[in-house]
Amino acid sequence: MDFEYDAKTEDYRKRLLAFMDEYVYPAEASFHTDGWEPPAILASLKEAAKEAGLWNLFLPGEHGAGLTNLQYAPLAEITGRSPAVAPAALNCAAPDTGNMEVLAEFGTPEQQDRWLKPLLAGEIRSAFAMTEPQVASSDATNIGTRIERDGDDYVINGRKFYITGAMNPNCKIFIVMGKTDPDAARHVQQSQILVPRDTPGLTVERGMTVMGYTDGDHGGHAELIFENVRVPAANLIGVEGGGFAISQARLGPGRIHHCMRLIGMAERALELMCTRALARTTFGKTLAEQGVIQDWIAESRVRIEQARLLVLKAAWLMDTVGNRGAHTEIQAIKIVVPSAVEWILDKAIQTHGAAGLSQDTPLAGLWASARMLRLADGPDEVHKRSLAHRELKRYRSGS
Amino acid sequence: MDFEYDAKTEDYRKRLLAFMDEYVYPAEASFHTDGWEPPAILASLKEAAKEAGLWNLFLPGEHGAGLTNLQYAPLAEITGRSPAVAPAALNCAAPDTGNMEVLAEFGTPEQQDRWLKPLLAGEIRSAFAMTEPQVASSDATNIGTRIERDGDDYVINGRKFYITGAMNPNCKIFIVMGKTDPDAARHVQQSQILVPRDTPGLTVERGMTVMGYTDGDHGGHAELIFENVRVPAANLIGVEGGGFAISQARLGPGRIHHCMRLIGMAERALELMCTRALARTTFGKTLAEQGVIQDWIAESRVRIEQARLLVLKAAWLMDTVGNRGAHTEIQAIKIVVPSAVEWILDKAIQTHGAAGLSQDTPLAGLWASARMLRLADGPDEVHKRSLAHRELKRYRSGS
Amino acid sequence: MDFEYDAKTEDYRKRLLAFMDEYVYPAEASFHTDGWEPPAILASLKEAAKEAGLWNLFLPGEHGAGLTNLQYAPLAEITGRSPAVAPAALNCAAPDTGNMEVLAEFGTPEQQDRWLKPLLAGEIRSAFAMTEPQVASSDATNIGTRIERDGDDYVINGRKFYITGAMNPNCKIFIVMGKTDPDAARHVQQSQILVPRDTPGLTVERGMTVMGYTDGDHGGHAELIFENVRVPAANLIGVEGGGFAISQARLGPGRIHHCMRLIGMAERALELMCTRALARTTFGKTLAEQGVIQDWIAESRVRIEQARLLVLKAAWLMDTVGNRGAHTEIQAIKIVVPSAVEWILDKAIQTHGAAGLSQDTPLAGLWASARMLRLADGPDEVHKRSLAHRELKRYRSGS
Amino acid sequence: MDFEYDAKTEDYRKRLLAFMDEYVYPAEASFHTDGWEPPAILASLKEAAKEAGLWNLFLPGEHGAGLTNLQYAPLAEITGRSPAVAPAALNCAAPDTGNMEVLAEFGTPEQQDRWLKPLLAGEIRSAFAMTEPQVASSDATNIGTRIERDGDDYVINGRKFYITGAMNPNCKIFIVMGKTDPDAARHVQQSQILVPRDTPGLTVERGMTVMGYTDGDHGGHAELIFENVRVPAANLIGVEGGGFAISQARLGPGRIHHCMRLIGMAERALELMCTRALARTTFGKTLAEQGVIQDWIAESRVRIEQARLLVLKAAWLMDTVGNRGAHTEIQAIKIVVPSAVEWILDKAIQTHGAAGLSQDTPLAGLWASARMLRLADGPDEVHKRSLAHRELKRYRSGS
Repeated sequence: MDFEYDAKTEDYRKRLLAFMDEYVYPAEASFHTDGWEPPAILASLKEAAKEAGLWNLFLPGEHGAGLTNLQYAPLAEITGRSPAVAPAALNCAAPDTGNMEVLAEFGTPEQQDRWLKPLLAGEIRSAFAMTEPQVASSDATNIGTRIERDGDDYVINGRKFYITGAMNPNCKIFIVMGKTDPDAARHVQQSQILVPRDTPGLTVERGMTVMGYTDGDHGGHAELIFENVRVPAANLIGVEGGGFAISQARLGPGRIHHCMRLIGMAERALELMCTRALARTTFGKTLAEQGVIQDWIAESRVRIEQARLLVLKAAWLMDTVGNRGAHTEIQAIKIVVPSAVEWILDKAIQTHGAAGLSQDTPLAGLWASARMLRLADGPDEVHKRSLAHRELKRYRSGS
Repeated sequence: MDFEYDAKTEDYRKRLLAFMDEYVYPAEASFHTDGWEPPAILASLKEAAKEAGLWNLFLPGEHGAGLTNLQYAPLAEITGRSPAVAPAALNCAAPDTGNMEVLAEFGTPEQQDRWLKPLLAGEIRSAFAMTEPQVASSDATNIGTRIERDGDDYVINGRKFYITGAMNPNCKIFIVMGKTDPDAARHVQQSQILVPRDTPGLTVERGMTVMGYTDGDHGGHAELIFENVRVPAANLIGVEGGGFAISQARLGPGRIHHCMRLIGMAERALELMCTRALARTTFGKTLAEQGVIQDWIAESRVRIEQARLLVLKAAWLMDTVGNRGAHTEIQAIKIVVPSAVEWILDKAIQTHGAAGLSQDTPLAGLWASARMLRLADGPDEVHKRSLAHRELKRYRSGS
Repeated sequence: MDFEYDAKTEDYRKRLLAFMDEYVYPAEASFHTDGWEPPAILASLKEAAKEAGLWNLFLPGEHGAGLTNLQYAPLAEITGRSPAVAPAALNCAAPDTGNMEVLAEFGTPEQQDRWLKPLLAGEIRSAFAMTEPQVASSDATNIGTRIERDGDDYVINGRKFYITGAMNPNCKIFIVMGKTDPDAARHVQQSQILVPRDTPGLTVERGMTVMGYTDGDHGGHAELIFENVRVPAANLIGVEGGGFAISQARLGPGRIHHCMRLIGMAERALELMCTRALARTTFGKTLAEQGVIQDWIAESRVRIEQARLLVLKAAWLMDTVGNRGAHTEIQAIKIVVPSAVEWILDKAIQTHGAAGLSQDTPLAGLWASARMLRLADGPDEVHKRSLAHRELKRYRSGS
Repeated sequence: MDFEYDAKTEDYRKRLLAFMDEYVYPAEASFHTDGWEPPAILASLKEAAKEAGLWNLFLPGEHGAGLTNLQYAPLAEITGRSPAVAPAALNCAAPDTGNMEVLAEFGTPEQQDRWLKPLLAGEIRSAFAMTEPQVASSDATNIGTRIERDGDDYVINGRKFYITGAMNPNCKIFIVMGKTDPDAARHVQQSQILVPRDTPGLTVERGMTVMGYTDGDHGGHAELIFENVRVPAANLIGVEGGGFAISQARLGPGRIHHCMRLIGMAERALELMCTRALARTTFGKTLAEQGVIQDWIAESRVRIEQARLLVLKAAWLMDTVGNRGAHTEIQAIKIVVPSAVEWILDKAIQTHGAAGLSQDTPLAGLWASARMLRLADGPDEVHKRSLAHRELKRYRSGS
């Protein structure tokens, strides 16, 4: 047992921290958009990241930087300190990361050439169209969208919502989850298929807000309508009925990334909380001298340390025993990290007074992201239930 | 001891509930604005409210409906079920309510004629410019804005922020809090003065957001700059040095109103939570059959009942022993109600999944309001500290 | 709506407060027992209470003081400030109170003469034998004890545990709940029957502890074994199959009493917390100056005020619309009061350091009582579920 | 970074787990005492532990098993599953562990020969007399006990309380903390000195309870009075004024041990919770099928995993960078582990109903221990304040 990052990780961390100072933080103030395209400054940040060798760090194997989950996790944490800017700058932003992983692992050479290549180059963006308004997205077997074979094509009908990134006109390709065979066994009814943005019958209906935020700077969250959307059969990813398995495969790394970025957000929040507490005086004392604020600071530090260790252990398990062996820990971080970070952000906001809710600090926006992650890919409650079932099974079989 | 509403209250409740059904709820869907003026439909709602005898209910005495705090409180609760629409429709929206109270109680006949009259008629809106970016607004003695006598005028310099309603061009008059004598005793340094919107030197700088919301439909929250803003000495409200006392006077009713509206918001949230829980099925069960959701529903009901009783008792105390005698209870409701309601809203959101954070339900917006009220006129922590001091005093003097 | 106690209540409160000062608090230090009989001093306290006209206050109607629930509740609160001493001194201690209510309402003249009379006179104690080790006591239909008719007798077999008061040798009579007809409809299978302590076949097996406390001073908590215990048929209370209904009847007042005593316990805890905080100095400041302690004090006050109002409203509802109409509120206080008071006691303990857990303050013992009440007559979770069902029903029928 | 235990640890774990099954769990039922001496069975357990090579595992260096903190921690966790039996059986019980560490590190050869030897052999027990009734023990500079030089002796006067283990007549030696020079600088006023139990002037006044428990099976918690207690100057441990430094040295390992045992207690509680939930049926479902219970189980698992990792990291830091470098993490585990485990125990109790509070499960006793550890060597709040100060310092110096 050893709690030290390895040399490669430390080297990347050092370079990434320098990149944050030189490029990312200075870009924050101007990183806003009124529409759905990313702020103009992003292009130059991406160039700088490429030059600095900080590009596609998330991706294991030949296509990417070749880091393990345990090596990438501390880097994802650092990007989480500026989650609107840094992940996009490094081509490590969701949902492209998961889409690139899927294409790298399951894509045909043609699919990789057509879509993975420009994604890896940061030339286009992508979206993952899974959640639907009418059904609980935590239960993938509920899915209503149909993908039906028709000659050499598939025809897609359905409605998707909260499809992150899809409002961005440069989001050129959607991976769509739907049912190819509703009568098959529960976990082989679904397939995933590539749908280019300009395919007839696909309407990007509207942007959906998260607590009042459009999240326009990373392409918003779209409601999409698929009406007889026809794509070649060659657009299917993997095999018919393989959609559920593919989405399981992306979940593990996706949660590690999300959770590590949340840790970075929490560190940023704690830094802002402390800085504000030292600077602000009420009733003759700085906030930093108030016992209740001190309590928040200590609690925040303790929660961050615990959460980070659990995420790192989950990453280590994925590297050593695989996604399946890390199942409990991956679920555990999904349960604990968003709510812990939400709590810390709430206290950081409270320390800032009304300004903490305004556009003058990043805190309110970060809070909205953390809150969303208590719901995204399944509410906390579903994951708790599932984790409890596994825990109970140990005693059931024992009896 | 008797927990029944009196006949007058019941009569008003009945009529107000009918008004909500007929006018308010149907207007909600279209009650949006992209700018800073209220939605067009508001004018007709106001006419309907006047005709229904549901106008200026908040105001005691000859100028208003003449209700006690205890009689008005249950009506404010009902308006809180649709807090963007109903209070404005009934001319019972903050901050106009507090401003009208101040003008009715402390205004000169000229001031009342010039400003109270059109406010009572719902022809203009108003704002209360107290909080400042550089100082903790919970400590009024911190205030930085200066109001200096210069011949027959006062000259105002300073910066205010989060001034609710002030982005609305029809917000014609600001009550501004500032220091007339920084060297006087702690609570007589401040004065309040009337500043018309079009006074030279007053700049409405920008709208400030709350968790991503502009709150444009009720005039937003403005940052204001006062640079040598000159108004006649007759614009002073009450006497020089009376500003702190005047703002104390408005606090009691203001908190009762806010808290009762929050109770209404919580009832609305619980209703939406139950309705959704009954309608939504996951993993073969409705959400309403899930134990955790049932726990939330029960907790919500229990918290609402407790919170409502405490607010009503505070209102009763204000009516029977005055604001001063109700001090502890008024502070107690400020401490408990926003956070209880925030909790309920969080659970209602969670029950709705991602849709709960979107524009498709009122929940996310209500949450942002409740969260703001944990900070507005002093963060929870300041009020707890003050309440604890009074509690401790009982034992200190006893020893 | 009126939040003032009536004149009769105020008169009783005044006299009871004086009695607490003169008799109860001074008796606390010596109110300990190593066995199962009450401390010797209790007899004289009972005489004093009778003389002071503070006897059987809990009992409505001709047999008792004739107070309403709303009138008695504030008195129960006061006795809760010293829950080991005061209720016993006033002959208002559970479970005798419920047993006397049952005998007064459902007992035959013979039963009343034989058992109610000496209970009212404070000459004997009684117990209520309902809970069983093998089944969840929250679900009365689970009950395993059999009461079988055999000629002119009933024969009882079963095992009961946590039967409060039953270790006291002066506990002369047990009201036993069991099934007379396991095949009847769900709520008419149970009956209640009087079993004198010395009946052959009844074994008082052992005392059960609550967090290490024997609670010997109020007769402990016994495990009882019934082996062919034979009593005359005339010992049945009410009718065969009426047991469930009778126990519902006692629940309402019982919960009001428990909850109001808990409020008194919380007031005592808050008093001790404040006194300690003012007296104790660490790191150059009194605890009372520490922000975190102030936060606890304020939270405690706010929770007490809310809880009290809800209990009083439940009492008022019982008086005005009956137990059935007060169902939700009675359940709500069962849910909220024990856990709120437990929280306050925890903070009072923490303020006292290790001494708070010792025999040197009443806090640890009070905590154990509050904790037990989160389980006694059904765990919180069962009551929440039931309350949620009623809440959901409003929307189900509405649809 | 690597989350796997090393081979030595795994070997010890395997043997210790077998020892628990063979000796410890079977001994639990009879591990009770009515007085202050350990249950008779303990002697044979100690023999068995010696034979199994599971003796003095806690002690690094030549005197003990020579394990690092990181190696011992997982073993301490296992003993925590049966905290009344296992640590005593393995001669790894507090406060002897700390006392042996102190004697091994700071004792003279004569002191080691006289006291360390029989302690290592498990022939006698010892106590650490630091906390005092009149002062907050979290602030060591408060200490009131005097140790005054008088010729070749020291003379001790003072009062100590909650001295764990001291009621046991076989507790032959006390390490007493007191002030040798109240006028010296803050952290060099204190010294530690060896006082044999039978020294004239030392009175073991009484046993103090923890939530009603005497903890007689591990020697209780005594109040001690020192009246002109005279011991030879050679009994001083280390140098005059070194008392504070010595007690700091014992704190680090002590907290690791306590916290790891708490993790074991939590695992035991979770096991009992699951087993009970699977076995108990109410309203037609097992408790294991209830959503709220599942929520508790999942939360418990997640909290345990996080807490364990943080304790292990603190142990690793102590081994790699020393106690000073591990300061924040040691404080963090003191803050988080007792309260997390208390929460888990509370839910395990609730799952068991009233039986969970009785002597029929170990849960209530474990809860009392966990609760005590929120106060022992400083309440949570003091540690949070201190941790916050260090966190704030990073930003203060940065500015």
